[in-house]
Amino acid sequence: MKRPILHALILAGGAGTRFWPASRSLRPKQLLPLVGADPLILQTARRVLSLVGWDHLHVATGKHLAAQTAAVLPELQSRNTLVEPAARNTAPCIGWAAARIARTDPDAVLMVLPSDHHVRDEPAFVQAIERAATNAASGTITTIGITPTHPETGYGYIEVDGEIAGQEVCRAKCFVEKPNRTKAEEFVAGGKHLWNAGMFFFRVGDMQAAIRRHLPALATGLDAIDAAARAGEEDGAIERIFPTLPSVSIDHGVMDHLSEFAVVPGDFGWSDVGSFQSAYELGDKDEQGNVAPGHAVLMDARRNLVMDLRTETAPSGRVIALLGVEDLVVVETADALLVVPRGRAQDVKDVVSALKARGDGRFA
Amino acid sequence: MKRPILHALILAGGAGTRFWPASRSLRPKQLLPLVGADPLILQTARRVLSLVGWDHLHVATGKHLAAQTAAVLPELQSRNTLVEPAARNTAPCIGWAAARIARTDPDAVLMVLPSDHHVRDEPAFVQAIERAATNAASGTITTIGITPTHPETGYGYIEVDGEIAGQEVCRAKCFVEKPNRTKAEEFVAGGKHLWNAGMFFFRVGDMQAAIRRHLPALATGLDAIDAAARAGEEDGAIERIFPTLPSVSIDHGVMDHLSEFAVVPGDFGWSDVGSFQSAYELGDKDEQGNVAPGHAVLMDARRNLVMDLRTETAPSGRVIALLGVEDLVVVETADALLVVPRGRAQDVKDVVSALKARGDGRFA
Repeated sequence: MKRPILHALILAGGAGTRFWPASRSLRPKQLLPLVGADPLILQTARRVLSLVGWDHLHVATGKHLAAQTAAVLPELQSRNTLVEPAARNTAPCIGWAAARIARTDPDAVLMVLPSDHHVRDEPAFVQAIERAATNAASGTITTIGITPTHPETGYGYIEVDGEIAGQEVCRAKCFVEKPNRTKAEEFVAGGKHLWNAGMFFFRVGDMQAAIRRHLPALATGLDAIDAAARAGEEDGAIERIFPTLPSVSIDHGVMDHLSEFAVVPGDFGWSDVGSFQSAYELGDKDEQGNVAPGHAVLMDARRNLVMDLRTETAPSGRVIALLGVEDLVVVETADALLVVPRGRAQDVKDVVSALKARGDGRFA
Repeated sequence: MKRPILHALILAGGAGTRFWPASRSLRPKQLLPLVGADPLILQTARRVLSLVGWDHLHVATGKHLAAQTAAVLPELQSRNTLVEPAARNTAPCIGWAAARIARTDPDAVLMVLPSDHHVRDEPAFVQAIERAATNAASGTITTIGITPTHPETGYGYIEVDGEIAGQEVCRAKCFVEKPNRTKAEEFVAGGKHLWNAGMFFFRVGDMQAAIRRHLPALATGLDAIDAAARAGEEDGAIERIFPTLPSVSIDHGVMDHLSEFAVVPGDFGWSDVGSFQSAYELGDKDEQGNVAPGHAVLMDARRNLVMDLRTETAPSGRVIALLGVEDLVVVETADALLVVPRGRAQDVKDVVSALKARGDGRFA
């Protein structure tokens, strides 16, 4: 099989309150160094660069995040930035990217990747995405499913037709919404379910055809944008038309309706970095189990997660000292400080609600 | 007895690491609002204003603290500020203040007060200092002894000749250094010991005579300063002579040698605010037992002490959120953050040592 021309689209429009005060509407998770020293989106880009290079690396993000996204990805080509004037979920921007690439190469394979996940085993990851891209090049829309390590109830699953074990590419049966505990345990024990990691691989022409079939209204809008783009007027068309496109995810709008799609099982230490708890678990630990920047002073302190995201001062200009505390999350930003036990870190959304309730919208 | 002309001298030269990062060498305890909203020294000044007024209120401090001390006491008269060019303990500056006042009124009574203590019952305090001042006016150097509420091993004691109970003024026997636990328990049970709160009351002429007798070298130096001051050249003399004066405390240098001195028992909710723990105990608590500024967000958080001493931003410009934590001390300053269990707060000196050891002298 001829090696396909590969492109990557990194979806970077997300927001979220689970990492408050680190994450904000104007500084979402993918722009933060939640695991390691670099923003997650930069780590994501680096993971695929060996396959696509900056020439073929595209990033979709919101208008309000465009400048900061460009700042953390200085090598991103501005022509490869898809700035969404309004949030319309994933299908519209994937369709937009597909149409852009298809104008010159309808057989190119596009891989769509979330911007804010973490991968421990990068060689295994690259092997999996190469395999998925190669499969997609033959005309089957393909996804990657993560081999579950535990009965996680926070993820969606992909059910596979037949046994997964030993297969490099499986026939997918369907997407399964986040299960309850019992279901999740059955899934892990049954050997026929994988975690949905939100990664999609397809020939751009195939995705255009699938959208035309399953989301005709979206296809019409994308066609209008494409026609304007061919006339050199993409920006105006996006500004005018994109906000009117149906807001729908690629999972529900397209994947769920496909008569056939494939899934490549992946086992490369994947995490969606969904909480401070997982940021702690993934982080490099000192001898006392702390995940903390080098300038923190930790005395008789164990298993804490310390994040210093005060960007306005050099780390050496400030001291964070933890003495005699255990299992805490301490997050410091320019305008907020959070102290919470690691086991309660998922409740930070309540703090955000409380701040909103008292009118402190700035801090949300 | 004629009501004496009263002066007060507030000793504000201290430093210390027990309140790091709140306290620093350039921002010692008395300049901080450790209990209540105002710096301790301002609270101290206000407590005695009804007796002395700003005209007779003197403050002794170090050169490096003069500007900040003036800033928190804007009504302090600059002629009433005694700026010590070098730290020489308490006897030299008390002698200097006595000589200054004696130049116009050798019969004036001077009360010497620490700048960084807390008093809960201000009327009872004022009653006690009036009583001590009145006694001093009759020619006996007088101190105040605090009725002990528990066998504290962190304070010095004053032993009284005879029973304290029922007496308004007692004859003091001697100062007693910080006792061990057994001794302290004996002191509290015996009813003959009071806490030494470092407050002294005397006619300025009496103190000059006592210094001349028990610290003749100091008296000689003070005389030289006094002579220069009479010639309008006090500043130069202080700069030149003060650093050469013997470094000795009024307790050891004078009080210990007196054949007779008096002590007024006081019971007015006194504390030396010696630790974060006592700042917590003295602070106003919310329903969950937290002592925290109004802009802090406390959710399911109990018995914490939160201090926001970031002076460069308005409190409303920053959020401190504690979620699900108990019995912590969280202190935030412009350049440092400390998180420590209340019960371990006395160990913050170890953090200061660690910072010094790694060369971060700035943070000490």
